Amino acid sequence: MIVANKNRFWRVVRHLQAGEDYNTDIFEFHEGPIPELNDNEFLVKTLYLKNSPAMRGFVLDGGRYHETVPVGQTMIGRGLGLVVRSHHANYRPGDVVSASLGWQDYCILTTEGGDHEIASVQKITNTVSPLYRLMGILGPSAFAAYFGMLDIAQVAQGDTVVVSAAAGGVGSVAGQIAKIKGGQVIGIAGSSDKCDWLVSELGFDHAINYQSEDVSARLRQICPRGIDVFFDNVGGSLLDDVLQQLADHARVVICGLISTEYDKVPPPGPAHYYNLVYKRARMEGFIVWDYVDRFAEAGNQLAKWLAKGQLKATEDLVIGLDKAPDALGALFAGGNRGITVIQVAPDVEEII
Amino acid sequence: MIVANKNRFWRVVRHLQAGEDYNTDIFEFHEGPIPELNDNEFLVKTLYLKNSPAMRGFVLDGGRYHETVPVGQTMIGRGLGLVVRSHHANYRPGDVVSASLGWQDYCILTTEGGDHEIASVQKITNTVSPLYRLMGILGPSAFAAYFGMLDIAQVAQGDTVVVSAAAGGVGSVAGQIAKIKGGQVIGIAGSSDKCDWLVSELGFDHAINYQSEDVSARLRQICPRGIDVFFDNVGGSLLDDVLQQLADHARVVICGLISTEYDKVPPPGPAHYYNLVYKRARMEGFIVWDYVDRFAEAGNQLAKWLAKGQLKATEDLVIGLDKAPDALGALFAGGNRGITVIQVAPDVEEII
Repeated sequence: MIVANKNRFWRVVRHLQAGEDYNTDIFEFHEGPIPELNDNEFLVKTLYLKNSPAMRGFVLDGGRYHETVPVGQTMIGRGLGLVVRSHHANYRPGDVVSASLGWQDYCILTTEGGDHEIASVQKITNTVSPLYRLMGILGPSAFAAYFGMLDIAQVAQGDTVVVSAAAGGVGSVAGQIAKIKGGQVIGIAGSSDKCDWLVSELGFDHAINYQSEDVSARLRQICPRGIDVFFDNVGGSLLDDVLQQLADHARVVICGLISTEYDKVPPPGPAHYYNLVYKRARMEGFIVWDYVDRFAEAGNQLAKWLAKGQLKATEDLVIGLDKAPDALGALFAGGNRGITVIQVAPDVEEII
Repeated sequence: MIVANKNRFWRVVRHLQAGEDYNTDIFEFHEGPIPELNDNEFLVKTLYLKNSPAMRGFVLDGGRYHETVPVGQTMIGRGLGLVVRSHHANYRPGDVVSASLGWQDYCILTTEGGDHEIASVQKITNTVSPLYRLMGILGPSAFAAYFGMLDIAQVAQGDTVVVSAAAGGVGSVAGQIAKIKGGQVIGIAGSSDKCDWLVSELGFDHAINYQSEDVSARLRQICPRGIDVFFDNVGGSLLDDVLQQLADHARVVICGLISTEYDKVPPPGPAHYYNLVYKRARMEGFIVWDYVDRFAEAGNQLAKWLAKGQLKATEDLVIGLDKAPDALGALFAGGNRGITVIQVAPDVEEII
């Protein structure tokens, strides 16, 4: 029996305020009926959900680059689902889709109507095993690493590359891509376990534990000729430290700034931004969803590296929809390692 | 009589300290003998000297991207000179050169030896009248505007372009180039006279007087779709204001930061640098001397625009070597307009 008789979902019951720490009490777990289908709609059973720090913006009062989920509605989230019922000609039961499914067991999708999230339903036609790779090492976090490191940083043979939040979903892939391209890669992470993992499992040249080491001094020691590429997920004082150690023609990729993004008032910016002049350097931001037309390219390349053993998969599977709020919180508490994927359907490999 | 019997020169008698306001008392005006020539040397009579804010770094204790002129030595400065005596096969009396001449009437140059400044002697072979154009609208400040606006900003038809210190040497040319390329150009300057000049003489679409207007509010009003290009010579809070009004895929060119460069401790950086992510934008620095191989290209293009009347010459001629310290100070007090050129030889157009 693929379709259960109830739908479990996480409802947003209040918004986080600017400057407030993430708290799971903004969500409540509820049950309701499986919704009925209208014409051109299809019912999707959630298999996996992806997690990313940017999702905090979905529940933030006055969030910046995504509309905030209204109080009372189901938390949004992208994932992989199985079409289980359909009134739509192009989506049949058994099809697998990548779409904005929400934090729930079942959702109704359509490809009509103008809504951006709904419009981005993608039917999965390639065979990938395990399937969750498509939300992991072959999914959006890995694509962010790919386009950030290749298109924005334009990493090249011999570059000295520093990655912050290096054990995180994007960082763990960004550093590996830089290694594949011939860079000397230094990861910055928040525990000795993570640092060990970066070096011994993922092949980083060095890892610095920012909780116990003087990052600035260690960078000076490891990178005497300066830093060519900084792939930054953190912001704050670390960014300013790195700006003081840039090599000529350095590229600073701003992928995220988890350290300060949700502060009530933006803290001072990097005082040494002016080193961009002295070092003829560039600091640039990007959003992975701008590259959606090239996701297939990224996915193909990452799959090749994975098959050759040049790239290690870094998914961290969290089992159970009930764990979704805690799993999101782990991203802000440094509790995650690699790309967090929530497995919602317990027997997913059997039902597809 | 082309060669006088004495050489006047400005000697550096102390260094500015970090955070100290510019003061002309760091220089003393002296006279000495005309130096004798050795083999492969030639004597150059200074005709014109160029001035730029970066020269403050030459007299700054612990200056950053140029070696500080030692106390007791002649202030360095680039200019145009006439070869008046020569023991060098390739430089004959009557040749005009662009070189680091120093703040003095006469200097000895050679093309041998490894010193960077000396090595960059360029013989002027094209006919330009008036000659000072080569330190002005056809010189390094204009080249900075050219490469900054075309190579770094990649200004395009329809772009909304904001230039700070728009009435200054680089800004007055940068804005004109953006107009030639089809941009809508807004200049920010420090007096109503300067603002009038930008709009009525140089063809800027708008000018904002930062001394009397709310720059941020005016920018919001003039640029409702956001700012595509910011050519920044100023830094400080203005940069942060503009970062909050970027359009998608904006380019922020860091040419200078006269407002804070010489502060004792760098002030906080732009808090809203993170808009580089939301707006998929880029902030990049450059140094015009990296483009020395393309100066001829820039000079030819600027000369064509000038001949067609699309570009207005903006030189501000200061007469007399004795005015050099004051003329440099005017750059930091907002007293200049356009590209400051110091005419050292009183009868220059007759002697060449």
